[in-house]
Amino acid sequence: MAAAGGPGAKKGILERLESGEVVVGDGSFLITLEKRGCVKAGLWTPEAVAEHPDAVRQLHMEFLRAGSNVMQTFTFSASEENMESKWEDVNAAACDLAREVAGKGDALVAGGICQTSMYKHLKDEARIKKLFRQQLEVFARKNVDFLIAEYFEHAEEAVWAVEVLKESGKPVAATMCIGPEGDMHDVPPGECAAKLVRAGAAIVGVNCRFGPGTSLKTMTLMKEGLQAAGLTAHLMVQSLGFHTPDCGKGGFVDLPEYPFALEPRLATRWDIQNYAREAYNLGVRYIGGCCGFEPYHIRAIAEELAPERGFWPPASDKHGSWGSGLNMHTKPWIRARARREYWENLLPASGRPFCPALSKPDA
Amino acid sequence: MAAAGGPGAKKGILERLESGEVVVGDGSFLITLEKRGCVKAGLWTPEAVAEHPDAVRQLHMEFLRAGSNVMQTFTFSASEENMESKWEDVNAAACDLAREVAGKGDALVAGGICQTSMYKHLKDEARIKKLFRQQLEVFARKNVDFLIAEYFEHAEEAVWAVEVLKESGKPVAATMCIGPEGDMHDVPPGECAAKLVRAGAAIVGVNCRFGPGTSLKTMTLMKEGLQAAGLTAHLMVQSLGFHTPDCGKGGFVDLPEYPFALEPRLATRWDIQNYAREAYNLGVRYIGGCCGFEPYHIRAIAEELAPERGFWPPASDKHGSWGSGLNMHTKPWIRARARREYWENLLPASGRPFCPALSKPDA
Amino acid sequence: MAAAGGPGAKKGILERLESGEVVVGDGSFLITLEKRGCVKAGLWTPEAVAEHPDAVRQLHMEFLRAGSNVMQTFTFSASEENMESKWEDVNAAACDLAREVAGKGDALVAGGICQTSMYKHLKDEARIKKLFRQQLEVFARKNVDFLIAEYFEHAEEAVWAVEVLKESGKPVAATMCIGPEGDMHDVPPGECAAKLVRAGAAIVGVNCRFGPGTSLKTMTLMKEGLQAAGLTAHLMVQSLGFHTPDCGKGGFVDLPEYPFALEPRLATRWDIQNYAREAYNLGVRYIGGCCGFEPYHIRAIAEELAPERGFWPPASDKHGSWGSGLNMHTKPWIRARARREYWENLLPASGRPFCPALSKPDA
Amino acid sequence: MAAAGGPGAKKGILERLESGEVVVGDGSFLITLEKRGCVKAGLWTPEAVAEHPDAVRQLHMEFLRAGSNVMQTFTFSASEENMESKWEDVNAAACDLAREVAGKGDALVAGGICQTSMYKHLKDEARIKKLFRQQLEVFARKNVDFLIAEYFEHAEEAVWAVEVLKESGKPVAATMCIGPEGDMHDVPPGECAAKLVRAGAAIVGVNCRFGPGTSLKTMTLMKEGLQAAGLTAHLMVQSLGFHTPDCGKGGFVDLPEYPFALEPRLATRWDIQNYAREAYNLGVRYIGGCCGFEPYHIRAIAEELAPERGFWPPASDKHGSWGSGLNMHTKPWIRARARREYWENLLPASGRPFCPALSKPDA
Repeated sequence: MAAAGGPGAKKGILERLESGEVVVGDGSFLITLEKRGCVKAGLWTPEAVAEHPDAVRQLHMEFLRAGSNVMQTFTFSASEENMESKWEDVNAAACDLAREVAGKGDALVAGGICQTSMYKHLKDEARIKKLFRQQLEVFARKNVDFLIAEYFEHAEEAVWAVEVLKESGKPVAATMCIGPEGDMHDVPPGECAAKLVRAGAAIVGVNCRFGPGTSLKTMTLMKEGLQAAGLTAHLMVQSLGFHTPDCGKGGFVDLPEYPFALEPRLATRWDIQNYAREAYNLGVRYIGGCCGFEPYHIRAIAEELAPERGFWPPASDKHGSWGSGLNMHTKPWIRARARREYWENLLPASGRPFCPALSKPDA
Repeated sequence: MAAAGGPGAKKGILERLESGEVVVGDGSFLITLEKRGCVKAGLWTPEAVAEHPDAVRQLHMEFLRAGSNVMQTFTFSASEENMESKWEDVNAAACDLAREVAGKGDALVAGGICQTSMYKHLKDEARIKKLFRQQLEVFARKNVDFLIAEYFEHAEEAVWAVEVLKESGKPVAATMCIGPEGDMHDVPPGECAAKLVRAGAAIVGVNCRFGPGTSLKTMTLMKEGLQAAGLTAHLMVQSLGFHTPDCGKGGFVDLPEYPFALEPRLATRWDIQNYAREAYNLGVRYIGGCCGFEPYHIRAIAEELAPERGFWPPASDKHGSWGSGLNMHTKPWIRARARREYWENLLPASGRPFCPALSKPDA
Repeated sequence: MAAAGGPGAKKGILERLESGEVVVGDGSFLITLEKRGCVKAGLWTPEAVAEHPDAVRQLHMEFLRAGSNVMQTFTFSASEENMESKWEDVNAAACDLAREVAGKGDALVAGGICQTSMYKHLKDEARIKKLFRQQLEVFARKNVDFLIAEYFEHAEEAVWAVEVLKESGKPVAATMCIGPEGDMHDVPPGECAAKLVRAGAAIVGVNCRFGPGTSLKTMTLMKEGLQAAGLTAHLMVQSLGFHTPDCGKGGFVDLPEYPFALEPRLATRWDIQNYAREAYNLGVRYIGGCCGFEPYHIRAIAEELAPERGFWPPASDKHGSWGSGLNMHTKPWIRARARREYWENLLPASGRPFCPALSKPDA
Repeated sequence: MAAAGGPGAKKGILERLESGEVVVGDGSFLITLEKRGCVKAGLWTPEAVAEHPDAVRQLHMEFLRAGSNVMQTFTFSASEENMESKWEDVNAAACDLAREVAGKGDALVAGGICQTSMYKHLKDEARIKKLFRQQLEVFARKNVDFLIAEYFEHAEEAVWAVEVLKESGKPVAATMCIGPEGDMHDVPPGECAAKLVRAGAAIVGVNCRFGPGTSLKTMTLMKEGLQAAGLTAHLMVQSLGFHTPDCGKGGFVDLPEYPFALEPRLATRWDIQNYAREAYNLGVRYIGGCCGFEPYHIRAIAEELAPERGFWPPASDKHGSWGSGLNMHTKPWIRARARREYWENLLPASGRPFCPALSKPDA
């Protein structure tokens, strides 16, 4: 029986996008679970799926309640290259957790792979594709709904990933962690997008490394590049939850605050509503987040686009839209904050008068 | 059998403090679970213990792993006044969750009550004490290890709370949500502390409403007030995880950013290490956090004071002290961040050049 | 003959103040002439009166046009202690320049002396008074209209200065360069003011070292101190033209930016209109400026208080009040700036996103 | 007789530049004299040459002492279009003042014209050229040393100006008030520069509207444009003395702070030393300033390039290079500022914690 939550019971990712639906992605795992004590910064591997499954399940649940339509398997960097013999169990456990939670709501499971460490030193297509294929085999066995190749800083390697993932016959999304200046070999965003589509990706875009505003600039360039090339694809954006107007080509990892002092850059829910609206206006229909995107940021996407979608996410039972939950406060000046105009126009202070507004990236 | 984690098996709160141990408190529940989708801002009540017990248990677990020695029952505002008929079940469920997690490590359970809404309009000692006594009865039945009266902005009401909690025969801690200017009736911090001690509190201090730096200023005044009055008590601080150098007497609720745009004010782990050190130097031995304190902030307290305590918290298995986890990074400028001096001296940018550093409080 | 501008032709300083008039002081000489190339920073002596009399005359003229009612002799630090044999000629030339310009408008000439370098090391009242008396002899010979003892950081030395100046029989004003924390021996501002009045000063207040906001806080304390002591005096304020909310007891010299990077702190004309209004509301009637106060800042005082005084300063022929001179601009968004509300509410950006808002004072 | 200071006695502008000398320009007249009370903002015309000649002479003198090799006639906007019948006297008086002061040092006199108001509405080449020619006739009669067409936002009108000025047979410099985005008709900087050279300008570059950093970006583009076109010319830059990283195509006039709240943006002398060095490294040899450039900023150019030029400007008798004048201060922490490294690395605070770092331009 295709019970509620079984893969067969739900519309697939392409059906959704082709019918014009907005797909809400999920958010931050590595950075968020680092703060919750289950991931080690520097290492950035997802052994938490085995060591702390309750923590990972809980985070999936929070994103589901916030409105995510996709549970990405927590398999970032979970290749044999980075996790040695543990890789297979980690990938399998991650699939099970994602599927378990997806089954509790209207979400699909996406198997995710990312760039290798090897590529920079050794552009060995066969070895790299083998690493991708190993993870794909687990995803196929676990019957994920679609696949995501994400966090690639070189278009060439991303193309290899798409080529492998296409072998599964499932829909493939591909996102690069590049900014408006293009990939590390100076391939501009529009050209990167075209390469990914030509390789077989049905959905293309960016994730990570750059904040909401910068990511949307890159998406504009990708969209223009596809148009110029006469190609079509669905557009997807999963930006950082941190503001990075000052970052260079390498993105936020080069900022002096990475990764342990990014707090002042963290987006508010209102920043993310604005991001969701701008992404939507640009034609992007798969909208989620990456590092720094907490569950309430995902809810902000779902709430901003609730008029278009016709429904609210479950977690809106705990959120008064645009601050309306403050309208019973005993202090009149706090009640005065229970309105959209207030939060849209607020310029939030840092509380840090000895700190600057921008940093110069290292390197 | 007094199994590992049973209340009988552990040193009590006063034994710990009297022997000079540092007690690490826990952190933020309302604000953190609001961001995770389980608490409604404006309402700020803990029905999540019943509706989303996994989420509450998980947060307790994260604080335990981070090094907390106290699991506070998530019973803030859970009186009959605010929760009607649900109040009793919520208090009981909260005790069970706290006890369950405390049993997995070296943590005590503290039953917590806070100020009433009623006090401002109707200083009816009997009615208010009755509300406190109702919650206390559940705590007694559930056999919590000690009691905390917290978040009082009037010394008079805090004294009433201490008087009720003392009836249990268990140790009582009392913290007010005041700043250096004193309580809402202009009772200075030193005098507030003296009143609480005279009422029977063995542990006194501040929680919430003010950031780390401001809270420690208030603690200095409390310490001086106790000395001047010839009184002794253990000192306790559980500040906000947000920087609020610009707030007035009412604390962070009066800042324009409260409660939905406080992100740029969020403390880094290094800010909290500094707070822990300064609190320790001041003689405070019960050190935790309040709104905004995420699990990694609690870990920062436990790590900063690890030399004095002689051990590290469990979650340090996922944290390289002072950024040492970065020392294998491929980029040399990121490896250069793997040292204490780097993070201690960094002035983190907000990434928000159109926003100010400080705000003027409303009201 | 009491020709136009001769001292006999004008109302004296006390007549003005006693009749309730506002007296507009003058502004910055040392810092301003340093920027014009005639004063050496570090040395801070006024040999420009001899070396570049045209530059000094021109600056006096600008202040006169801006509305100043007082031409202070440019004799800061011009004692034998700092200028050796040149001291006498410099004092005499400064008096002549001040008198020449004062004669062109409604301004009095005030002879000014300031604290000695000697006092800190050698509290030799006789030697110090001798230095003051030397300058006073020149002022008496040149028949200045009144005398100002300014820039004293110790009340004791300021009292000695007042005692000497009183010997002339002319009215004496005395201003200290202290902030709300009091003088360098911890004498609070109110007590300092009382000492000065008891020593014979008819006008007391503060000058230099602290910005507009901080200086007015000190004035409030001086006013309260005089009231508490049952004393009366005219109040005078000549603050810095730089914002210094972050300075400590030593004032702006301890800020890291002193003296060569104070630019971002420079007050706008609107800041100074606000300062003039607040000073007036506090009861201060002698309102001028010190370091950083350019001619247009003095004009801002005169314009803000034009309604009370009934006339505008000469240089208002070159200034559209509250930006009204922009109302013919071809760009509509610049015309929109031609109104009071615009400039009163503007929060001017620094254009320096890599710099902080506040500094920690050295020492 | 070619007396000291007579035009015949000095090397001409092209001789200097062709022999590789650095020519130091002068600085701000309109904005500076507005602050001194002699120019009206909004109107921005130079009637001060007639009304307040001492003020204008003094400012010329200050620039001369600061190291300027060029006294620009204060004839900005002094055409018949803006000044009606007064235009001729104003131009003549301005020439006399510039010549008088130039005669006191090693400076040339440059007659200056700027864009018309008419051009935007009526591109009538004949009428506009007639306006230029009227001013040129005065300059020719007064025998200025060379001519500058400055502050043009349209390359076409700048070309017309150059064509007129060339009729004099004297060297012509031409600077546009454009940024990296090009002129108001979207002609890129490189192409603008090429047009000016082809029209006969021997010296080309930018002045006004943009701060030091932005102006040097535009100069880089001009240099590249000339190289690409196979043209050669001397390069000249006279940027604002205000930082404007946030301005758009229209430059600082569109910033909300223009013109009455630009203070926080004012460059320090160290900012200007850096600007001079970068301009020099780029190959620019005529380096001066525009609005906001005070005499000490010009001295900063002359001091930075003193090693290359082999001499110091006269006003360096009142300036300890790199703060060395502080090395006798009584406070050790102020003595510690008497060194280059200190000032080069200082990030000056604004003292304005309620203000942002950047503004969004209007329009």
